[in-house]
Amino acid sequence: MKTPAAWRRNRPMWVRNAWYVAAWSHEVADDGLLARTIMNEPLVLYRTGGGTVVAMEDRCCHRLAPLSLGRREGDDLRCMYHGLKFGPDGRCNEIPGQTTIPARAVVRGYPVVERGSWIWVWMGEAARADVSQIPETIAASDPDWNIGMGCLDYAANYQLINDNLLDLSHLAFVHENTLGRGTPQWATEQPIRARLDRGVRFQRRFRGRGPSHYFGKPGERYDMWHSYDFLVPGLFIQRPAWYPLGTAKRCDGKAPAEEPLFVRCDDQAVIPVTDRSSRYFYSAGGRSKDASLELAGEIFRFTEVAFHEDKVIIEAQQKVIDQDPGRQMLSLSMDGGPNLFRGIVRELIAAETSIGGGAEAARAG
Amino acid sequence: MKTPAAWRRNRPMWVRNAWYVAAWSHEVADDGLLARTIMNEPLVLYRTGGGTVVAMEDRCCHRLAPLSLGRREGDDLRCMYHGLKFGPDGRCNEIPGQTTIPARAVVRGYPVVERGSWIWVWMGEAARADVSQIPETIAASDPDWNIGMGCLDYAANYQLINDNLLDLSHLAFVHENTLGRGTPQWATEQPIRARLDRGVRFQRRFRGRGPSHYFGKPGERYDMWHSYDFLVPGLFIQRPAWYPLGTAKRCDGKAPAEEPLFVRCDDQAVIPVTDRSSRYFYSAGGRSKDASLELAGEIFRFTEVAFHEDKVIIEAQQKVIDQDPGRQMLSLSMDGGPNLFRGIVRELIAAETSIGGGAEAARAG
Amino acid sequence: MKTPAAWRRNRPMWVRNAWYVAAWSHEVADDGLLARTIMNEPLVLYRTGGGTVVAMEDRCCHRLAPLSLGRREGDDLRCMYHGLKFGPDGRCNEIPGQTTIPARAVVRGYPVVERGSWIWVWMGEAARADVSQIPETIAASDPDWNIGMGCLDYAANYQLINDNLLDLSHLAFVHENTLGRGTPQWATEQPIRARLDRGVRFQRRFRGRGPSHYFGKPGERYDMWHSYDFLVPGLFIQRPAWYPLGTAKRCDGKAPAEEPLFVRCDDQAVIPVTDRSSRYFYSAGGRSKDASLELAGEIFRFTEVAFHEDKVIIEAQQKVIDQDPGRQMLSLSMDGGPNLFRGIVRELIAAETSIGGGAEAARAG
Repeated sequence: MKTPAAWRRNRPMWVRNAWYVAAWSHEVADDGLLARTIMNEPLVLYRTGGGTVVAMEDRCCHRLAPLSLGRREGDDLRCMYHGLKFGPDGRCNEIPGQTTIPARAVVRGYPVVERGSWIWVWMGEAARADVSQIPETIAASDPDWNIGMGCLDYAANYQLINDNLLDLSHLAFVHENTLGRGTPQWATEQPIRARLDRGVRFQRRFRGRGPSHYFGKPGERYDMWHSYDFLVPGLFIQRPAWYPLGTAKRCDGKAPAEEPLFVRCDDQAVIPVTDRSSRYFYSAGGRSKDASLELAGEIFRFTEVAFHEDKVIIEAQQKVIDQDPGRQMLSLSMDGGPNLFRGIVRELIAAETSIGGGAEAARAG
Repeated sequence: MKTPAAWRRNRPMWVRNAWYVAAWSHEVADDGLLARTIMNEPLVLYRTGGGTVVAMEDRCCHRLAPLSLGRREGDDLRCMYHGLKFGPDGRCNEIPGQTTIPARAVVRGYPVVERGSWIWVWMGEAARADVSQIPETIAASDPDWNIGMGCLDYAANYQLINDNLLDLSHLAFVHENTLGRGTPQWATEQPIRARLDRGVRFQRRFRGRGPSHYFGKPGERYDMWHSYDFLVPGLFIQRPAWYPLGTAKRCDGKAPAEEPLFVRCDDQAVIPVTDRSSRYFYSAGGRSKDASLELAGEIFRFTEVAFHEDKVIIEAQQKVIDQDPGRQMLSLSMDGGPNLFRGIVRELIAAETSIGGGAEAARAG
Repeated sequence: MKTPAAWRRNRPMWVRNAWYVAAWSHEVADDGLLARTIMNEPLVLYRTGGGTVVAMEDRCCHRLAPLSLGRREGDDLRCMYHGLKFGPDGRCNEIPGQTTIPARAVVRGYPVVERGSWIWVWMGEAARADVSQIPETIAASDPDWNIGMGCLDYAANYQLINDNLLDLSHLAFVHENTLGRGTPQWATEQPIRARLDRGVRFQRRFRGRGPSHYFGKPGERYDMWHSYDFLVPGLFIQRPAWYPLGTAKRCDGKAPAEEPLFVRCDDQAVIPVTDRSSRYFYSAGGRSKDASLELAGEIFRFTEVAFHEDKVIIEAQQKVIDQDPGRQMLSLSMDGGPNLFRGIVRELIAAETSIGGGAEAARAG
């Protein structure tokens, strides 16, 4: 697939100085090596004996073979093509048949943080890695919540998936029989948008909606407070809460202070793999006081059905775009969220590109 | 697959102002949406309640999702990504969450004609759509004929298929055991060629040929008058007729005026899908007075076997061309038909490109 | 797959004036046509009635269809698209429907030699074809040897396979459980390298190694003299020999003059098919006095398992390279062989490119 001129013109197309989800915690086993690609860079992940996750370039500096076909030796990783051995910091510490190790015998290491059941990798300049940018997400082990965890591979550019999550009006159409059932308001009423430091917050209330698939009694009606943040590089953090009918009116568009009847949770991460492929990590469930493990499993599976509905339309959209990459999208009222977020991404890329340019200039000077 | 320099140099490579077969009539059901690609443009086809076929761009003007994943609502078509609704003329008539509809909220509509069991779509400027350019082809419902109808997908540029149909000398080799059996004259004798307004007419007579697979008695011999037109953009219209032995001599190379013993019919349309893929629609059969439904079915299946022989050699030819796209073909006597038709196509493309240029200049001025 | 800039910059990337193995002798049957691609050129091979192998361009000069879909007629080959017939020299000698045959109606013929169970094709200027450049390899029919013969297709550039064969230190890692088992010296001790006219000779001795999979008694130890030549364009000719313990010390790094206990043989040819695909021909076995047909079969199958180990790592290496084609390899002590051979290839390409340039200038002048 040829990269459309539009993407090439925008290069670099990715925010580098950001935390990217590389895996679920449980995917990085105590032994074993996990190969992942993020922003077209090959990574290998593993755990040291102490349990710390290591992420390094999955490309031996010698002849460019993947280290993920290598062998763990203690906390080191040996390339099984010609036997170079690397420490967790990426420095080569053994070369068969020679005693001196050149300074260039090193593979890139990436800052890694394990938090909330995700392995977060910092893809930019290590010195700028800022742990405070990692949002709070719900861990599988959190006793207050019950969640299911999953992952989908997309044959589409990550921006199309972000766009989808930044405009939930599509729930009324793509998900008319699943997530959007009985709530045409998704399309007819716009949420309130607030720009965050590195993202956008969306808030809205639904008045008198009926029971959903997983909460509520037949015939009863509820108010819902719906709020989510969408953060750089592509994180969707959502905690919808149900209240007794009348709460919305009383609160007049603000978040209710009282205890909700039911809260569900959704943490999602959109990861660019290549120009035309992405990985989508997601959890879904509810407060353990509202949702048993069984009910959380139902919420998760119900949600996963909807994610396949997204996948069908987004991958089809990507194919149509690739037939005529110069074709422009038409901006409508509902596109406020996607447009705002695309602008934030562009600004961050521009800023770090000029930083990078400065750094390179300094190095050269 | 990289487009060879030769094709790129020739761009535009397609006649736009022409009728292209998009589908068999029966493929466009009363409900349902049919997605097709012609000349790299995505189309969606459907029938209104009145039965009229609509063809429009299969790409929502909003975020470029395919309308063929949408939903019919009366005679309108709703995009099921974010809910824009379009009339049969391509104009958007509903946008969820906003009341004004921008003038740019429109998808391209294509002139469509349903004739002779084919859906014909005009791919060029709508104002130039000229129904008189659609040749007479045989409809499935025509009581005078019995036909079978089929379709093949080709991994090859449409010109290679046109070339094949413009030089039937290949019958003696590609089809030596099927269509060309017992008639080496296909290769040894050249037909008479006449340039038509938008095509080429080929005529020849076979003297004393034996019975074919589907007509004639063992041991008897016949004369055959063979005539076909090959028309822009890639239409093959053939009506071979069998006569008693001696007819050819009497008519001295002209079409016999008398009633033939047997007439078969072949209507074929070669459709460019992309640079490297094509669709080939075809019907084959005979006059109902000569060929029962059963015999027409035999003619059709026998012919389809031969079309698979073509597909093997043409797709292999395309692969060889792609290994070294700069390689030139060598023009021989038998290439008069292909060369003449390629010249007509080039002229039409040049003419409509300069027309287009003029129109654009007028709009800009 | 886009060709990385690195390969394009190096173009031409192949030595043309060299013998390439196109097939095993038994693959070119008495009748039948064999299609092969070498250096992105399509070839068709067949045997004349006298048994001589013919190799010509697998591309009819008329409309570029492959001749390998054609038909043998005596020693000639007829294209089964439009019937042009070619002699074994590549000259067209029949064109249906016309009597004169243009001088340009010719396909390229290639010099061919059948020797040692391989069909060797000269891919460069025919006038420079030099049979003395074909090394001695072992024929299936040689009574002194018993061998097995095989072939693997690689999704990798031929240079990566050559590199692998030019640095056997990888045996200690890639083949630690097969060919390299019990001999870490492959990685820790460097062989002696000698530059040959068109290749490199590698020699080393192993002292006191244990029995191998196919030779030696449990508990006993042997010395081994290991010698192989690697020749342009990618030929690996190896004859490892086992001796009684102590022989190596007595010979002091030179080849022992005495009769060995056991000699195995390996002939291999790496063939560039395209930029990103290669074919790997190989035989393996032993002297018939040492290895019965059964034991030779075991040696062969054991070796073939190891070749699949190479294929896994080399194809993975190619994928990593293609993710970032600008990435440089790091040269270490063990890379003396690959570096020396890559230099020889570069010199030959440079020399024949300037020869070619001269020839073209002369023709134009």
